[in-house]
This record gives sequence, structure tokens and C-alpha cells, in this order.
Amino acid sequence: MPTTPAPPPPPAPRSRTDRRHDTAHRLAHDVDIWVATASPDGTPYLVPLSFHWDGEAVLVATPADSPTGRNLAATRTARLGLGPTRDVTMIEATAEVIEVDALPRQLADAFTAHTGFDPRTPTTPYRWFRLSPSRVQAWREANELPGRTLMRDGNWLS
Amino acid sequence: MPTTPAPPPPPAPRSRTDRRHDTAHRLAHDVDIWVATASPDGTPYLVPLSFHWDGEAVLVATPADSPTGRNLAATRTARLGLGPTRDVTMIEATAEVIEVDALPRQLADAFTAHTGFDPRTPTTPYRWFRLSPSRVQAWREANELPGRTLMRDGNWLS
Repeated sequence: MPTTPAPPPPPAPRSRTDRRHDTAHRLAHDVDIWVATASPDGTPYLVPLSFHWDGEAVLVATPADSPTGRNLAATRTARLGLGPTRDVTMIEATAEVIEVDALPRQLADAFTAHTGFDPRTPTTPYRWFRLSPSRVQAWREANELPGRTLMRDGNWLS
Repeated sequence: MPTTPAPPPPPAPRSRTDRRHDTAHRLAHDVDIWVATASPDGTPYLVPLSFHWDGEAVLVATPADSPTGRNLAATRTARLGLGPTRDVTMIEATAEVIEVDALPRQLADAFTAHTGFDPRTPTTPYRWFRLSPSRVQAWREANELPGRTLMRDGNWLS
């Protein structure tokens, strides 16, 4: 016998338009994102990082010698989780590696204003990683699994 | 000039005892966990799954033919993220693969009672994966990075 009452049924699934709107809002306003990477021999890594959305890509910074930094430099591939587990946007992305002094100052300043962290100041050597989405999906509960794909092959679905 | 006031400084770092207590509470009461895996050739995957903590391991169920199911069967390795991004427990785990009918009924029933989902009923073939922690770390903000390790090589630190 269950010890808790059955949860209420979830709301009706959102339209693709609503999911794109909600995803755009999170990309612009959320500060943290889950970043999953893998070593070339298949060891998974996962860590939450602060990010800034520049309108087209997710910008993160992490030490060049951290597991995430090494994995992104080697494989150029990440899978990102945005939002809480029952309101997720999942993003497959390709990574561009940018040395810490090579990012345009205006963009680095925008990152620092959004996250409260300036990767140009630590004594540990950091790198920027610009993560460009190729596939984006968004869902809340199981009834939103159909219709979850918002971007495919780098193109937003209309 | 920043557009928002500076956030208040974070609270003092928790002790290891407090972090273990908070982690134990999340393991017993949370329903969802982020599961990062990788294919043998180094493609990362990440998805939130419902879980049940059996006292020693994280039990999840996912279709045998899903990316997570295939990766866990091939590599037997996962990295798990529990809690929100500013109050995380990160868990490195080794995976035991258990066919859907091979799990003791009492444990499968406990999973279903905790998650509201019974992997024994879908028409899609599911498998159980029992994820045994080898390394556990917990932190909230950057000031909790020192002292974040709670388990090393499968042993809780005292």
C-alpha cells in the first residue's frame, strides 16, 4: 500500500511554441547548467557550472586541467541539462575552445555580470568553452515526452 | 556596472558530518537524480531518472535500448548529480545490470512505491541498474569546495 496519496495528474503538455519560449527564458536568466562530458575512453563526468547565453551558444569557463576542461578539449562534445529534473531542457552541443585572453572583452564582461565570476582573475588557468547547441529537447513529465524536440541538426523546428 | 546588487555572502561551510546527514536525507527522500554516462567511444549522455536508495546503492530503471541503458551495460560506470546546482551531491558509481524480472520483488516494490513508476509493466523492455557509490562529494557554494569529499574508494570518511 503506498504511504502517500497518488499525485495529481500533470497539466496538459505544452505546445512547441511554449516550450521554446520557456527554454529561451531559462537560457537568458538561469545562472547554472549541468555539463556532462566524457573522456575519449568513455569515462563520464558531470558538474554544474555557471553559464552565460550569448544568443546562440552557452558560454562556460572551467580550469583547463579540470576533467570537464580536458574532456571538452579532447572530444568537443557536451550534453547539457538546464532546469530542475521535472522541467528540463536537454542540449547536445559542440564545443569551441577559447583561451582565457582570446574572448572579446565585451563577452567576457557579460559573462561576469551574469554569473558574478570572472574567469580572467583566478591564478588557476581557465579556458572558455563555447557550447553550440545541435539538438534541444524540453519536457516536464512523461506526458511531455512526445513533441520534446525543439532543435535538430542545429535548426530550431518551426 | 552590475544591474543587480551583489548577493549576500554564503553561509559558513558545513561540517563533514552535516554534509553526510544532508546527503543521506536526499538519498532517502529525493525522487530524481541526474545520471551521466558515456559510450565506449566517449560520447556523453545525461538524463534525469527516478531512483530508489536501497541503503547502499542507487537503483534506477531505464529501457535496455536507451542511450543510458546501453552505456551502463557497456561501461558499468556512471556519475550522478543529486540535488539542485547550488546544493549538490556528486556520486561516482559502478553499475550492476539486473534484468527486469531478476530483482527481488520486495526491492522492485519499494522502487515503485518511492517513484510511482513500475518498470515491470511497460511494453518497452526495461532493465534495472544498481549504481554503487565509490566516491561521494557534496557542496553548495565555492566556499564548500574544500572538505567536499565524503566517500573515497567506496568508504565513507569519518
